[in-house]
Amino acid sequence: MDKAPEPDATQDTHLAVALAKSARQVEEALDGLLPRPHGLHGRVHEAMRYAIFAGGKRLRPFLVLHCAALYGVSEKRALRTAAAIEAVHTYSLVHDDLPCMDDDDLRRGQPTVHRAFDEATAVLAGDALLTIAFEILADPETHDSAEIRCRLVARLAQAAGSNGMIGGQMIDMQAPHRALSPDDVALLQRLKTGALFEFSCEAGAILGQAGSEEEDRMRQYAADLGLAFQIADDLLDVTGTTQRLGKTAGKDVDQGKATLVSIYGIDGARQKAAALAEDAAALLAGHGGAATLLQQLPRYIVDRDS
Amino acid sequence: MDKAPEPDATQDTHLAVALAKSARQVEEALDGLLPRPHGLHGRVHEAMRYAIFAGGKRLRPFLVLHCAALYGVSEKRALRTAAAIEAVHTYSLVHDDLPCMDDDDLRRGQPTVHRAFDEATAVLAGDALLTIAFEILADPETHDSAEIRCRLVARLAQAAGSNGMIGGQMIDMQAPHRALSPDDVALLQRLKTGALFEFSCEAGAILGQAGSEEEDRMRQYAADLGLAFQIADDLLDVTGTTQRLGKTAGKDVDQGKATLVSIYGIDGARQKAAALAEDAAALLAGHGGAATLLQQLPRYIVDRDS
Repeated sequence: MDKAPEPDATQDTHLAVALAKSARQVEEALDGLLPRPHGLHGRVHEAMRYAIFAGGKRLRPFLVLHCAALYGVSEKRALRTAAAIEAVHTYSLVHDDLPCMDDDDLRRGQPTVHRAFDEATAVLAGDALLTIAFEILADPETHDSAEIRCRLVARLAQAAGSNGMIGGQMIDMQAPHRALSPDDVALLQRLKTGALFEFSCEAGAILGQAGSEEEDRMRQYAADLGLAFQIADDLLDVTGTTQRLGKTAGKDVDQGKATLVSIYGIDGARQKAAALAEDAAALLAGHGGAATLLQQLPRYIVDRDS
Repeated sequence: MDKAPEPDATQDTHLAVALAKSARQVEEALDGLLPRPHGLHGRVHEAMRYAIFAGGKRLRPFLVLHCAALYGVSEKRALRTAAAIEAVHTYSLVHDDLPCMDDDDLRRGQPTVHRAFDEATAVLAGDALLTIAFEILADPETHDSAEIRCRLVARLAQAAGSNGMIGGQMIDMQAPHRALSPDDVALLQRLKTGALFEFSCEAGAILGQAGSEEEDRMRQYAADLGLAFQIADDLLDVTGTTQRLGKTAGKDVDQGKATLVSIYGIDGARQKAAALAEDAAALLAGHGGAATLLQQLPRYIVDRDS
């Protein structure tokens, strides 16, 4: 297997430019897809837009677009699926920030939805973002084949559901009250962050009708990437500052949550993240130059601040 | 147009038996479709099941099954769609009961999910019930045609989304702070209760590939039925007792919420509900004897306790 390319400044610039481009594209798509505030219930539309347009790296849309491109699917074609996944990711942040969950006042340096609006509106805006994701995927504009659209709907529901992302958050909420083994923590992360990463990459293969072997490969790439991402995030929680993070630093430690950093230590976690980044990149070696940005991404994420 | 049949005791018995039968069927279906509690995240599965199996009339599943039967769709065939809609209805109750929404401790005489578990689990269980509804609909077992499954997904998302049920709840949450006109209150009810009733009936026509005229007719029947149902519910809030309701009586009045009862008065609301029940029944006259139970249902609901 080829080794992952070593990071250098030019590569990072290319990747940063590509990330910015896909972020802009998916934001334009979401602007067209989300309802404009109207009627007596306009407040929920405002909160949906506030949550979605609060910035963010738009990593999942990048994955959808670039994985789809490996299988000949145009950006235009893949954008609706990317938007749907970003809507689901955003809903999960809105609900996770609620007082009864992680109780966060800030997200990317701005008041969280329940602080900017109120708790009821935050619950409803999250519900609505989750709901619209399925509406977007089921629409004929997402793909000519209704079979493909149904597969996207079903797989997104599995990735986001009680045995995916929601299950991960459930474990996370109970984590302070339990002794989690390293395997438990890995499962938590795999469900909470990994499941939606996996679907983002798999969706590219589904849209391109690339077959189950490629779907499996993209899921594996995403699983490695997602775990590396989560470790990098946990490292930032320990090593970053609130100002730099745009959210409260040291929160996981304060809440007594087990993370891979608390288990492996800072250096051990860094090594594990680097190894995962390399594994992820190697999985795409067969795609040649078309996969270069996807191969660089894991290392870029791991190196971002940690 | 034919007049709605006058209610009598024998009819009511037939209807009660049919309601009990479809309730049993959909509960069996849901038992097979919802995950059994397992793993570190089993708590969310337990809460989903607690919410779903807390009883209830299962009116929406009855509508799906009986409307589908008008177009030759077997109960077995329509059950998955009925289960999906009941999951969405249940999620809406779980979230509406939250402290930041209606703050209800009791639902059908039992502790609400956030009281029996905790708030975070209630938010997650609601999210998971909403999510699984789309997974159920998108599965090939729901209908042979992927086009039909996609239409069910898209229409459910619209009915449940920010311009449907969620929009209605958004208006309801703001109602104590606003002066709502009779039209506003009618819109609130149409979104909050009507949208999912409409989809329940329309789904029967979609499953039976009956065409847009029949879909429209079923939606109109459901709109009349849903409004009659909501008026009956509001009347019960005023005239019922907490013990009889299994939830806190007088809540709407205490919270200063405008309802059709507060606008039209008790007698006016009763008359309006009776007129709607008659309109709904008349819409199905063309279906002959096959629609008898559906024709009796609106009157049965209006007469239940009010």
